[in-house]
Amino acid sequence: MKKQYLATPGPSPVPEEVRLVLAEEIIHHRTADFRAYTARAADNLRKIFKTENDVLILAASGTGAMEAAVANVIGPGEKAVTIQGGKFGERWTELVEAYGGRALVVDVEWGESPDPGEIKALLNENRDAKAVYATLCETSTATVQDIEALGKVVAETDAILVVDGISGVGAVDMKTDEWGVDILCVGSQKALMLPPGLAFISVSEKAWKTIRSTQRTAYYFDLVKARKSAEKNDTPYTSAVSMVRALVRATDIIVEEGIDAVLDRHAKLARATRAAVKALGLELLSKSPSDAVTAALMPEGVDADDLRKIMKERYGVSVAGGQKDLKGRIIRIAHMGYMDRFDVVAVIAALEMTLAGMGRDVTLGVGVAACQKVLLDG
Amino acid sequence: MKKQYLATPGPSPVPEEVRLVLAEEIIHHRTADFRAYTARAADNLRKIFKTENDVLILAASGTGAMEAAVANVIGPGEKAVTIQGGKFGERWTELVEAYGGRALVVDVEWGESPDPGEIKALLNENRDAKAVYATLCETSTATVQDIEALGKVVAETDAILVVDGISGVGAVDMKTDEWGVDILCVGSQKALMLPPGLAFISVSEKAWKTIRSTQRTAYYFDLVKARKSAEKNDTPYTSAVSMVRALVRATDIIVEEGIDAVLDRHAKLARATRAAVKALGLELLSKSPSDAVTAALMPEGVDADDLRKIMKERYGVSVAGGQKDLKGRIIRIAHMGYMDRFDVVAVIAALEMTLAGMGRDVTLGVGVAACQKVLLDG
Repeated sequence: MKKQYLATPGPSPVPEEVRLVLAEEIIHHRTADFRAYTARAADNLRKIFKTENDVLILAASGTGAMEAAVANVIGPGEKAVTIQGGKFGERWTELVEAYGGRALVVDVEWGESPDPGEIKALLNENRDAKAVYATLCETSTATVQDIEALGKVVAETDAILVVDGISGVGAVDMKTDEWGVDILCVGSQKALMLPPGLAFISVSEKAWKTIRSTQRTAYYFDLVKARKSAEKNDTPYTSAVSMVRALVRATDIIVEEGIDAVLDRHAKLARATRAAVKALGLELLSKSPSDAVTAALMPEGVDADDLRKIMKERYGVSVAGGQKDLKGRIIRIAHMGYMDRFDVVAVIAALEMTLAGMGRDVTLGVGVAACQKVLLDG
Repeated sequence: MKKQYLATPGPSPVPEEVRLVLAEEIIHHRTADFRAYTARAADNLRKIFKTENDVLILAASGTGAMEAAVANVIGPGEKAVTIQGGKFGERWTELVEAYGGRALVVDVEWGESPDPGEIKALLNENRDAKAVYATLCETSTATVQDIEALGKVVAETDAILVVDGISGVGAVDMKTDEWGVDILCVGSQKALMLPPGLAFISVSEKAWKTIRSTQRTAYYFDLVKARKSAEKNDTPYTSAVSMVRALVRATDIIVEEGIDAVLDRHAKLARATRAAVKALGLELLSKSPSDAVTAALMPEGVDADDLRKIMKERYGVSVAGGQKDLKGRIIRIAHMGYMDRFDVVAVIAALEMTLAGMGRDVTLGVGVAACQKVLLDG
């Protein structure tokens, strides 16, 4: 017997009651029964995203929603600001270029939040920029970006603000309407406690105006068509019926707990994880750490990927590693979605035992105690 | 208590053992464990598609695979032949135009198979046409098209043959390599006994050559990137892990039965359904009926959609209706995937009882008996 602990920033664990919905018999998607599921899922998502905007459900992984947010907005030769502070920020640039757009790239040091003043200046110089593409939680560096500040800057222009909230929303606060996020992209497999395979996108009136005026290359991800279907709680192409029914269950759980209570829980788990990491003498990678995932720099002489391998093979605990320049240098511990205090305790305990097993000088229990202190005090 | 019978051409019923796989705990997609699932799924699909070509798995519904087959093949202003004999043929035209291509539309009467001579002449006149887009089983009319004949015509040209096999493959024979199908698109929710949410695409060497020479607008559906990942049994973006594991189980069942035995079973159920329809004095819509689904014209005075509503509400049996001009005129009975002889008997029995309930002169049991005769003899 070996229990498995999935502490990776997507896919993340899914509650049994949600998984059992996936096992139910198939129903047809063009029925009143199924339309009621679609309507309820969209209502729940609006509460979680804190928006009154349209919320559309796509049968795709999160990148599909990102593609929709570019394919419907950027025509050939059109400009967009892309904020790059990690691997997922780079995806925005790639997408804008794939659709023939001109990306005005803002490079942000990995682990930091962008400077709103820089974006403001860039938008002043490029009044024809159609959109600013940002990332709520840059998972590759476990960094949360200040979307509220960006929203203030972008709201004063004709550009729309598009946010990749794929691995943040549900773990990190997203006040879509209050902050002026025109398009929000979210995936199923992060804080929303579902398997990968669904993506969600919310679209503001300002964004619809931009979309309508764009020479679009979109079919599967055509948002205008998706909106027309969504008015009847339908989708243009076959819905992923089992996943949508599971989505209702998973978001019912979140809405019942209350999104702010869910966010508080995430914040506490994140504080506990950060306290443990520091107590173990490790450094946090991010200067603006996310409450969805924590990135810890490994000490000299410890290869993060060796450590991860041992944690997985010896203890059944999966954490993520670093990408590109960070490969082998960091581990990323997710604490999002269906995770509670003792999941975090288990991961920290395994981390201590793995470091000790690798011959590092670790006082067993130090990280766990730091974790417990936060969990006890609140 | 009311048992439900899903006899719609997608989504179709899913075996319990496959649904239970969906309920299993989530595993991470960037692991050796998961790569083994991906490899096995692709191997099984190659056997079912009768191909040695690359088979790629996309997190999307079937239309996503169709988009990939256009976005990677047709650049701005480039020509393609699209064969339209129903709603799904029209989708090819829409896709080619969405990607800035020029569709050379071949209209085929709904319910008939295209004339290969006409395609040949068109390709002779348009030697720069990059592809011919066809449909194996045009679900909207329950018609199977002669892909083998098209393959012979297209193989003599530089164009590639792209086939929408979404609602046919697994129910109707598809000799991908023997017939020269360069790109085949398939969906999970038809004869492959899975929920909607995955799409599959096989790509020949000839098609890769075309793809490499194309100015492509593809990101989420970038086949070159997908192939590169598939070489390591991976995907560029997060895999729909639960669905892929269920795919392995569902295709294991098909491969174990043997694809030709599975096709024979479908052929027999289709013959039984057609015999029943005729015995009830109804006409088949299609001159080239598919073994995946049967379309029956309703007699004068019977609105097909009224009949479907009664069948569903009174007897729990779901069949599909007609689209566009056929709305209200036909019912479409699926017999694909996880359906056996008594599912077909049940549907025919419900059809008889519904017609009788609507005041039609029906001898109860006549259709069922015709059905049984085929099932017994065949």
